[in-house]
Amino acid sequence: MSAAVAVIMGSKSDWETMQHACLVLDELQIPYEKKVVSAHRTPDLMFAFAEQAAERGLKVIIAGAGGAAHLPGMVASKTTLPVIGVPVQSKALNGLDSLLSIVQMPGGIPVATVAIGKAGATNAGLLAAQIIGAYDSEVQARVQARRDAIRDEVLESSDSL
Amino acid sequence: MSAAVAVIMGSKSDWETMQHACLVLDELQIPYEKKVVSAHRTPDLMFAFAEQAAERGLKVIIAGAGGAAHLPGMVASKTTLPVIGVPVQSKALNGLDSLLSIVQMPGGIPVATVAIGKAGATNAGLLAAQIIGAYDSEVQARVQARRDAIRDEVLESSDSL
Amino acid sequence: MSAAVAVIMGSKSDWETMQHACLVLDELQIPYEKKVVSAHRTPDLMFAFAEQAAERGLKVIIAGAGGAAHLPGMVASKTTLPVIGVPVQSKALNGLDSLLSIVQMPGGIPVATVAIGKAGATNAGLLAAQIIGAYDSEVQARVQARRDAIRDEVLESSDSL
Amino acid sequence: MSAAVAVIMGSKSDWETMQHACLVLDELQIPYEKKVVSAHRTPDLMFAFAEQAAERGLKVIIAGAGGAAHLPGMVASKTTLPVIGVPVQSKALNGLDSLLSIVQMPGGIPVATVAIGKAGATNAGLLAAQIIGAYDSEVQARVQARRDAIRDEVLESSDSL
Amino acid sequence: MSAAVAVIMGSKSDWETMQHACLVLDELQIPYEKKVVSAHRTPDLMFAFAEQAAERGLKVIIAGAGGAAHLPGMVASKTTLPVIGVPVQSKALNGLDSLLSIVQMPGGIPVATVAIGKAGATNAGLLAAQIIGAYDSEVQARVQARRDAIRDEVLESSDSL
Amino acid sequence: MSAAVAVIMGSKSDWETMQHACLVLDELQIPYEKKVVSAHRTPDLMFAFAEQAAERGLKVIIAGAGGAAHLPGMVASKTTLPVIGVPVQSKALNGLDSLLSIVQMPGGIPVATVAIGKAGATNAGLLAAQIIGAYDSEVQARVQARRDAIRDEVLESSDSL
Amino acid sequence: MSAAVAVIMGSKSDWETMQHACLVLDELQIPYEKKVVSAHRTPDLMFAFAEQAAERGLKVIIAGAGGAAHLPGMVASKTTLPVIGVPVQSKALNGLDSLLSIVQMPGGIPVATVAIGKAGATNAGLLAAQIIGAYDSEVQARVQARRDAIRDEVLESSDSL
Amino acid sequence: MSAAVAVIMGSKSDWETMQHACLVLDELQIPYEKKVVSAHRTPDLMFAFAEQAAERGLKVIIAGAGGAAHLPGMVASKTTLPVIGVPVQSKALNGLDSLLSIVQMPGGIPVATVAIGKAGATNAGLLAAQIIGAYDSEVQARVQARRDAIRDEVLESSDSL
Repeated sequence: MSAAVAVIMGSKSDWETMQHACLVLDELQIPYEKKVVSAHRTPDLMFAFAEQAAERGLKVIIAGAGGAAHLPGMVASKTTLPVIGVPVQSKALNGLDSLLSIVQMPGGIPVATVAIGKAGATNAGLLAAQIIGAYDSEVQARVQARRDAIRDEVLESSDSL
Repeated sequence: MSAAVAVIMGSKSDWETMQHACLVLDELQIPYEKKVVSAHRTPDLMFAFAEQAAERGLKVIIAGAGGAAHLPGMVASKTTLPVIGVPVQSKALNGLDSLLSIVQMPGGIPVATVAIGKAGATNAGLLAAQIIGAYDSEVQARVQARRDAIRDEVLESSDSL
Repeated sequence: MSAAVAVIMGSKSDWETMQHACLVLDELQIPYEKKVVSAHRTPDLMFAFAEQAAERGLKVIIAGAGGAAHLPGMVASKTTLPVIGVPVQSKALNGLDSLLSIVQMPGGIPVATVAIGKAGATNAGLLAAQIIGAYDSEVQARVQARRDAIRDEVLESSDSL
Repeated sequence: MSAAVAVIMGSKSDWETMQHACLVLDELQIPYEKKVVSAHRTPDLMFAFAEQAAERGLKVIIAGAGGAAHLPGMVASKTTLPVIGVPVQSKALNGLDSLLSIVQMPGGIPVATVAIGKAGATNAGLLAAQIIGAYDSEVQARVQARRDAIRDEVLESSDSL
Repeated sequence: MSAAVAVIMGSKSDWETMQHACLVLDELQIPYEKKVVSAHRTPDLMFAFAEQAAERGLKVIIAGAGGAAHLPGMVASKTTLPVIGVPVQSKALNGLDSLLSIVQMPGGIPVATVAIGKAGATNAGLLAAQIIGAYDSEVQARVQARRDAIRDEVLESSDSL
Repeated sequence: MSAAVAVIMGSKSDWETMQHACLVLDELQIPYEKKVVSAHRTPDLMFAFAEQAAERGLKVIIAGAGGAAHLPGMVASKTTLPVIGVPVQSKALNGLDSLLSIVQMPGGIPVATVAIGKAGATNAGLLAAQIIGAYDSEVQARVQARRDAIRDEVLESSDSL
Repeated sequence: MSAAVAVIMGSKSDWETMQHACLVLDELQIPYEKKVVSAHRTPDLMFAFAEQAAERGLKVIIAGAGGAAHLPGMVASKTTLPVIGVPVQSKALNGLDSLLSIVQMPGGIPVATVAIGKAGATNAGLLAAQIIGAYDSEVQARVQARRDAIRDEVLESSDSL
Repeated sequence: MSAAVAVIMGSKSDWETMQHACLVLDELQIPYEKKVVSAHRTPDLMFAFAEQAAERGLKVIIAGAGGAAHLPGMVASKTTLPVIGVPVQSKALNGLDSLLSIVQMPGGIPVATVAIGKAGATNAGLLAAQIIGAYDSEVQARVQARRDAIRDEVLESSDSL
């Protein structure tokens, strides 16, 4: 089955964060591909990737990056698919730089930004699933089932305080 | 035609910002509804709205709020539709509080966050269109046409420097 | 004796912080209950809890949460009991996000916010006691006695510099 | 009827903000007194005020201050009544300094902090009412009635978008 | 004479800031060209511009942008000429977002970042001149003469205090 | 010889930082006393200490505190001696809260603020010495000698790169 | 009478702020001189000024600057007189940059930093007076008298709320 | 061969960061010298160094510093050579203070600022090479070759995800 989601990241070191997007997609049985694509070190690859994304059948792109974090916004400028940006936690500024670089896009080119770090990567996977789920009731049902399971975990965790 | 997108906001004073989401949806001919729904002042209405959103045929929810800005996250907790959060610029902290309250969601419940203020509201409308466009090639074509027009405007503006 | 204070938290991982509120309540002999209640993962439970809090005889609610930290504000929107919010220290932004999400409530629904982390949790317990103490002179006397003891500790610690 | 709440502020210029606490107390028929008490310019008055507050029959103290904003915390150190701190918006740092100085109290002496500026002052009045309302059902009913009225205003405002 | 410096900016609205770079270049008699080139709205133009810059005889590129501000970094990724980035003051976050997006580049692709706003644009012009001046003693002499004149202005301004 | 400088701190845990002020005073042979004085836990002791400081022959007070950090400002409100404030690095906010609480004093009551943490404590000792040295040429000479020694250390350290 | 205090500033535009230091010195009858001395535009003058300050009989230097704000720290590196730094409110970052550049000096060279803007300039004048007052009881008495007057103003202002 | 670049730093402890500039210069075969020069502890050496830099044949100066970080700006005030500033990560504020002190230079004296810490130091070396490369095609070719190699590494790293 061809990939519905692409999970890309600016550097191999972002994998520690971005794998959490992939774990969610695995769990929800959504086919995806994953790649290192660097805005600054492989700009031509990035443009080629973004330009071909829609015609290759992708529905959503998840892009993680840290620091100046131009990857999500630049991919978004070259495709009309929804692009989800994950701010990877940076060393000096804890990801505040990554967050602002990703979220503060000018009017015209949106990036759907999620939280800094692991929680954000998890939520990027879920957001991709919810976008697909808006048009695929089976996926939507799986998202709902995941939520029900998490709700039950919270209820149980309370008893063990 | 029933609404595909709901544009909600925490207070009537957010309309100045949120109208820019509606302008884009008008421009791209996407049917939408708009409402004031306050997380703190009308919590029951908010939950009822969120719970019924999917079955009412909505595909995407755009929620704008300022300050503590709980609206997007709480709506997201009660629906599996994709929720786009617009941080409205607040008085004292210029929307940094709104941004962090909206984007820093815990793993499990994503909000697709866009930029603070007017640019963010415009992009919320576009992101909704891009999500719909991933499954509706006509909408996607209109998004692309809007981009082409904007590109041409930039090229022309350069000549008048 | 029925609980006068409820100590709730958004996740079991907040217990490391929130136990310091419970330690103070134990020390001051104020009956309390403790629970995990998540704004985003158990929204219905949260609303039910908040709606019933006053009639169940609670006088004060202490709610701890991190990141987007919507729990204190949403509980406050569903009860007229005083709600104390404890910003739990978050991973990337050190609790600044938690603090702003909790304290920057819109006019109409207050949350009594205390410091980030352990000191805040301790003070949440004390603040609950001081609220109760304003109407119960025995509790007030215990708060005063605790302060006297701490004052003496400071004076002694100076000698050992 | 003797005052149940004292509204104090560090400077007469804080009145523009702090009057919003008084407006709420008027509205909810809670007797209060108001005063300028400066931590730095009238330290002895501040200590005398705080020491006598409980025996004078006050139940809650609301203290507003900007910049270094030591007033709420220092009053709190000299009374066991609950003290609500209102960060007044400062000129250079927009009240972020006021907020941190008020909320980041060390373990042992809590200040119930609300939002920066006018919304915070309004909420300080409401929080005082909610504290009193926990022990006075008539006041609690008035707080609830105010909320109901505000809820209705939101619902109506939505129709006029 | 062919341009030694290109002054580009992400939007025509940046001209108010970026003209100060041009004023300095005029003053120091350094030939330059100016253009609107948007990273997000004209990505292909941006890449073409950057790729051809060196062979067209440019020595330095000055790029101004606000908000997510990807222009300087993306141009830098496509040329080995020195790129100077000017953070344009943004509406909500006062240019802190622009600054971090421009300066926090990953190891491998540098951007020479200057101050936010007008002072930064002026200094971008001067920095370009100083880079050229390191290899052209006439330009270096003009930079020195400008400094001497400014020094004298400061000395005189002191007398009029 | 009676103490010319008092080194006070809000908690014994601040000693790790504040000892660096004492080390400098030892090194420069300036007699000093050291004490734990807490603004919030020993407010009366703090006022008594500040009121008597000048008549006891002290010339300068160094006060270190973290978090809300009211100690330096409150001592300054009760004495006309120069007060030097040292922001101790706090857990969640790294001392930014301490710094703003100490430095942002209202017009009327100054605190001479130095850097966060160890460097600040060292500099507090030096600043006290420089204040005394303005009236005591022997102390001034010792400060100068310390600087000369440090300059020589820097010069030597360069050779070992 | 020769000047005891020098009030210097990095630019004539800082006078609007720095005049408040001079007003206090006038009021307390402390002889002073005032000058524009720019760290970056007149570095040699700055060094000459700082080197000669002590032998010219100055006791305290007040230096105001904005943005990168190197003036106070660089003057401090060339004199052992106490240097008071006033962060002038900057355009984009509201003086946070000025504050951090002035206060975060490395161990070895202290700058006595006061609040951002007008309140800081007023306090710089007062701090200079308090330093001198530690050795001149007449000046100290005038500082005390000023405080008494301000205290009375606060007390009166309360009556007019 | 005489040095084309000087790499200076405010303290020997900055070497851990600044060595990354030297590694790049070694790799690109650009002759350089390295030195500890402290703005605050060796101000005269700093001025002498900066004044003689151009006549000694240097083309670019790289200056790293942390905290108040006055070194790059002060060197820039005494030479018309391009000066690259590297903000070294500071202990309390993670280098945000260093960054603002270096980048927020007033109009007239530019500093080419790069990212905080190791990435910034690496990029300082590359930026120096790119400046030289604008006039030396061999150096430019080496910079390009380094980029090509890095691009290939990214492409390979993607396969090993």
